[in-house]
Amino acid sequence: MKNIINNVAIVGGTHGNELAGVYLVNYWRDDEPQFIARSSFTTETLLANTKAIELNKRYFDSDLNRQFSAESLADMSLSNYEQSRAKVINQQLGPKGNPKSDLIIDLHNTTSNMGPSLLIPQQGEFYDLLAIYMHKVMPEAVVMLDEDHIANDKHHLLSTIAKRGVIVEVGPVPQGVLKHEVNEQMAKMTGIILDFVEMYNSDTLPQLPSSTDAYRYLESLTLPVNDQGQRMGMVHKNIEGNDFKAIKSGDPIFALFDGTEINYQGKDIVYPCFINEAAYYDSNLAMSLCEKVVIKHPQV
Amino acid sequence: MKNIINNVAIVGGTHGNELAGVYLVNYWRDDEPQFIARSSFTTETLLANTKAIELNKRYFDSDLNRQFSAESLADMSLSNYEQSRAKVINQQLGPKGNPKSDLIIDLHNTTSNMGPSLLIPQQGEFYDLLAIYMHKVMPEAVVMLDEDHIANDKHHLLSTIAKRGVIVEVGPVPQGVLKHEVNEQMAKMTGIILDFVEMYNSDTLPQLPSSTDAYRYLESLTLPVNDQGQRMGMVHKNIEGNDFKAIKSGDPIFALFDGTEINYQGKDIVYPCFINEAAYYDSNLAMSLCEKVVIKHPQV
Repeated sequence: MKNIINNVAIVGGTHGNELAGVYLVNYWRDDEPQFIARSSFTTETLLANTKAIELNKRYFDSDLNRQFSAESLADMSLSNYEQSRAKVINQQLGPKGNPKSDLIIDLHNTTSNMGPSLLIPQQGEFYDLLAIYMHKVMPEAVVMLDEDHIANDKHHLLSTIAKRGVIVEVGPVPQGVLKHEVNEQMAKMTGIILDFVEMYNSDTLPQLPSSTDAYRYLESLTLPVNDQGQRMGMVHKNIEGNDFKAIKSGDPIFALFDGTEINYQGKDIVYPCFINEAAYYDSNLAMSLCEKVVIKHPQV
Repeated sequence: MKNIINNVAIVGGTHGNELAGVYLVNYWRDDEPQFIARSSFTTETLLANTKAIELNKRYFDSDLNRQFSAESLADMSLSNYEQSRAKVINQQLGPKGNPKSDLIIDLHNTTSNMGPSLLIPQQGEFYDLLAIYMHKVMPEAVVMLDEDHIANDKHHLLSTIAKRGVIVEVGPVPQGVLKHEVNEQMAKMTGIILDFVEMYNSDTLPQLPSSTDAYRYLESLTLPVNDQGQRMGMVHKNIEGNDFKAIKSGDPIFALFDGTEINYQGKDIVYPCFINEAAYYDSNLAMSLCEKVVIKHPQV
């Protein structure tokens, strides 16, 4: 039997310098609660990393959105600010494995040119229908899957502590900046998810296409570094800003500071995203690579 | 009589998270000194805010590029990290008023869509010729003037401690991110300035146009805030990314979170820049407004 969604939590500020979610959550909570209200479920809002929001930083001690694996949540020796905050949020919206919340919508920004993206970290009919519906009503949206390389209890994302969870990821926008269009896209995508849940609950979804395209995460690429771990180059300008555009073996992917081009080597066509994301510089990550996949309507 | 330029200082990392200058200065110093060497002058390099570079932050205690007024440099009670660092740099490249350095080229990035911009904070024939030459060989460059609203000793920019100084400002690039094209534009503009100085010294400038267009700073606009000082809106999406594009009275300039549009009110056509610059969020600055001006060849 289908699980009705009785409550939804909209989370902003999991990263404190991703301002669209912070401002939208504040605005919806204080000034326009009807935007997130629907008849078949209750909606609550949460600002996740309050200290990082105050500091306009991604995090204070460590990345909050890496603290939600079942193991980390159970490890009371992990006690820095974000590790502690994760345990509190897990009590409030989870607990993971037996959660109060039926759906978390976690709002994020990226400095990469990913447009309005719906990130789906789990498998299931609900997600397949949501992806197909999203593309029907918001064709400019991108659906990105990260749903089968890891069991949900090992997933460390905040959105994985509820029964279901999705991430609304919109860019490009620099850290600590509000962009009108990015706010609009985030609000639109969030509203569509809430509309979808309302129709899903009441079995009133419209006729949907039999399938839709999506991108599935494969691996991350690091920037070229020398023996001392120092960066030797940058993402090539042909790649920069071209999130979700195909690259094939032989395409230039990095430019070293001396002008040398490094080409992508691989047997398949891949689709990069999170290209040059500022927050991933600590770990020298240059981009994620995805494959293109087809999501089929589960009832067709 | 013309003042020959005997030495040039190229400065990167005045803001620690503006990476193009940091990486280019390191690269030129260690791997390609011939790129910045010319026959008629010596070139030195400096990483200005070393602590902020290490932290990948704009600054540690306060903005280094606001510490170079004559008054601040003379005030020994101003002793935080950047205030102290400014005094050291002033000894090294200045001192302001009687400087060792004939020209500082200070390398900056912006999150705004300003392309490759040459910022000129002083008046004079040298600058007029440089602006005209820059446009001749790099038509995509923008020249921005901030040269007559304040006496040089009151200017608080690092580039004002030498006999002459310019800022190479390139965007858009998020803070803490390296962009291939931005690095290329910064290197190109820097090389052109050095070429210009070489020809200026030896009186071998080519025939130049009789004038060129530039933008002169007029004023800064702040984001709309409520009685508690909290932001009520954002830069309007019609303005976002359109640095140096004309706006006129009645054009929408801000969008409040409730959807209300705020229009620009002014009797003249103005040209915004530093639109939505991330670093200016602390002070709620939304953009700078400029007027369009003509720089005339001083010898025509």
